[in-house]
Amino acid sequence: MNWKLAARAAKMNPSVLREILKVTERPGIISLAGGLPSPKTFPIQAFADACAEVLHNDGQAALQYAASEGYAPLRQAVADMLPWDVDASQVLITTGSQQGLDLVAKVLIDPGSKVLVETPTYLGALQAFGPMEPHPVGVASDDDGVIVDDLVAKAKDARFIYLLPNFQNPTGRTMTEERRAAVSAAAAAAGLPIVEDNPYGELWFDEAPPLPLAARNPEGVIYLGSFSKVLAPGLRLGFLVAPKSIYPKLLQAKQAVDLHTPIFTQRMVSAVMKDRFLDTHVPTIRALYKRQRDAMMAALKREMAGLDVKFNAPKGGMFLWARLPEGVDTVKLLPKAVERNVAFVPGAPFYAGEGDPRTLRLSFVTASVEEIDTAIAALAQTLREELVLLGDRKLAATPA
Amino acid sequence: MNWKLAARAAKMNPSVLREILKVTERPGIISLAGGLPSPKTFPIQAFADACAEVLHNDGQAALQYAASEGYAPLRQAVADMLPWDVDASQVLITTGSQQGLDLVAKVLIDPGSKVLVETPTYLGALQAFGPMEPHPVGVASDDDGVIVDDLVAKAKDARFIYLLPNFQNPTGRTMTEERRAAVSAAAAAAGLPIVEDNPYGELWFDEAPPLPLAARNPEGVIYLGSFSKVLAPGLRLGFLVAPKSIYPKLLQAKQAVDLHTPIFTQRMVSAVMKDRFLDTHVPTIRALYKRQRDAMMAALKREMAGLDVKFNAPKGGMFLWARLPEGVDTVKLLPKAVERNVAFVPGAPFYAGEGDPRTLRLSFVTASVEEIDTAIAALAQTLREELVLLGDRKLAATPA
Repeated sequence: MNWKLAARAAKMNPSVLREILKVTERPGIISLAGGLPSPKTFPIQAFADACAEVLHNDGQAALQYAASEGYAPLRQAVADMLPWDVDASQVLITTGSQQGLDLVAKVLIDPGSKVLVETPTYLGALQAFGPMEPHPVGVASDDDGVIVDDLVAKAKDARFIYLLPNFQNPTGRTMTEERRAAVSAAAAAAGLPIVEDNPYGELWFDEAPPLPLAARNPEGVIYLGSFSKVLAPGLRLGFLVAPKSIYPKLLQAKQAVDLHTPIFTQRMVSAVMKDRFLDTHVPTIRALYKRQRDAMMAALKREMAGLDVKFNAPKGGMFLWARLPEGVDTVKLLPKAVERNVAFVPGAPFYAGEGDPRTLRLSFVTASVEEIDTAIAALAQTLREELVLLGDRKLAATPA
Repeated sequence: MNWKLAARAAKMNPSVLREILKVTERPGIISLAGGLPSPKTFPIQAFADACAEVLHNDGQAALQYAASEGYAPLRQAVADMLPWDVDASQVLITTGSQQGLDLVAKVLIDPGSKVLVETPTYLGALQAFGPMEPHPVGVASDDDGVIVDDLVAKAKDARFIYLLPNFQNPTGRTMTEERRAAVSAAAAAAGLPIVEDNPYGELWFDEAPPLPLAARNPEGVIYLGSFSKVLAPGLRLGFLVAPKSIYPKLLQAKQAVDLHTPIFTQRMVSAVMKDRFLDTHVPTIRALYKRQRDAMMAALKREMAGLDVKFNAPKGGMFLWARLPEGVDTVKLLPKAVERNVAFVPGAPFYAGEGDPRTLRLSFVTASVEEIDTAIAALAQTLREELVLLGDRKLAATPA
């Protein structure tokens, strides 16, 4: 049988990372790898009540085909909760914000189109854009986000820049107010559209992050949001907010993809969100994650002392970013860490171009404080052994 | 702001049909247009019990991220219910079978790729394939399905043929056993892969349809199925079964699109399907739809007598196909029917090439028997007036 693959499919390769990380699902491993929200935060009883209510009051409508745009009260709730003037007609409910990335790619990327991304950037975005065969170009970035001069230098003919300003995946960094203002102005001046991804923005620890880029220039930004981190990821419920000029194309792409996002889960979440549920629920998630971030930073300071490991101090979100000493390759380190029952994600695959092999991403949300302590100690021990090994090799390579 | 669209998006046009049919949502209209399963058939109590059970027993897992392949027990249940030897590892759970079409398109269609379809074919498939910019070619078809000689003549360099053998959308026709055997053999001889869509197969009235094409040549067929018509469409739950050589690419495309189908709805349906629920539930749907098909055929015979209207006798599914007298254009007829409070779908948009303007699709599942009687009478009256009008025009065009 002549199964001739499309060119884009022939280029799809199984993720090496995914294969390695499958090992981390075995019992006994403490995983700091996956971006799994803590299941302790899932409001199970609220969902149970919502399911019963929706099926009792609106069972037939909740199980029937529905509008591609999404459930009207949920679209309104999204518009109401965003911190700028959003009309519900600009909101499109998506099957997770990952689907928003797929729709954006379909509507804006031709084969070879230049697409700007942060350095490093969210791996899932690179994967979502991939089938439309863009040419992703990394914009130099520092602890405050993308560097404006490099953005300006690379903006010409780019279809858009993809930015994750709050508690970025993978680095955990947050774009400052000053940087946002400068990026927004520079993008507008260059006519460069922005795709802004904000799954983690509500997970701040001490103070809310600055306003989204979309709030500064709504006509220049497609904004992606998600219920995965404030309610539960297993419902696959996200949304996008698009300028009126682009919305109809995104809607048509959405309709062709899955007709509409499950209306039952849309109505469930709409029911859960009544009576300002998130106002009391989200602070409990923030408090939990803040405790676990503190524990991870304390453990890193304690266990990595003297090992020349650099790491940042995320102000929210789920991830911390670390850089190990010269010569260490975290892809090679991972299987050794797994032998010691701890897993992380190597940083290199998150780069559009060549990755920094010394970097890694640590999630502080899934494991408990005790598990974090154990895992970071094991990771330090793994690193110590690796450094000895690298030292030995260097010695061995030294002329006698 | 320079929102430059991808070429594929620039080609997306708002569906004229969709705009017309929006009118049909207004109260008082009896719609024979949409393919909406009768909400009377939705097992609301079974879903309520399943939600409570899933959240009580496995709440955290049911709300967490999950495997892209789908929920293992549901994949096994799908493999078990199909009438050929399917391994659960070949089953991919999709967000409705519409998503299966999107994944197939991504993996198998390059811009300009020839894709064979029936005449007419499912409009949603043309829409799902569209963004990958295929060249769809209609294979001549009769009441038994595609005509084998024409399939053979057009098979060269085609990426696949898309077939809906059971109670087809839009025609309601079913491919006979003889035709299936011939199509399967011809496709295999030509090395032509088949994409087989079977959302309606369980909705037979008097006897089950012949075995799927996939059962005859599993290595040559991607098979798409759905829970929309046997349980409820609002959950957007479907599946595909793919040969081992193609499955990994479809899985990678799936992961990039939405990570996974909502695990909560997968577990709901898995819980509902326990204890062979479908064995008792589906016959109630068959009985209802059969009564309504009978009512529609009786009404057509009664109301359309003498109007030269041809229509078929579907043996299952949801749709009936009709052809009106020469000179009538159903796209133009629709607004007039809507004035008389009845809606249908014109047939022309379902063709890959030029459509037959005299055809239309009638759904017999959403409206009740009484509504069907009223609607068909109104449709006949609309047609009668149109024929008078066409006659007048012909007279007016006749030289004096």
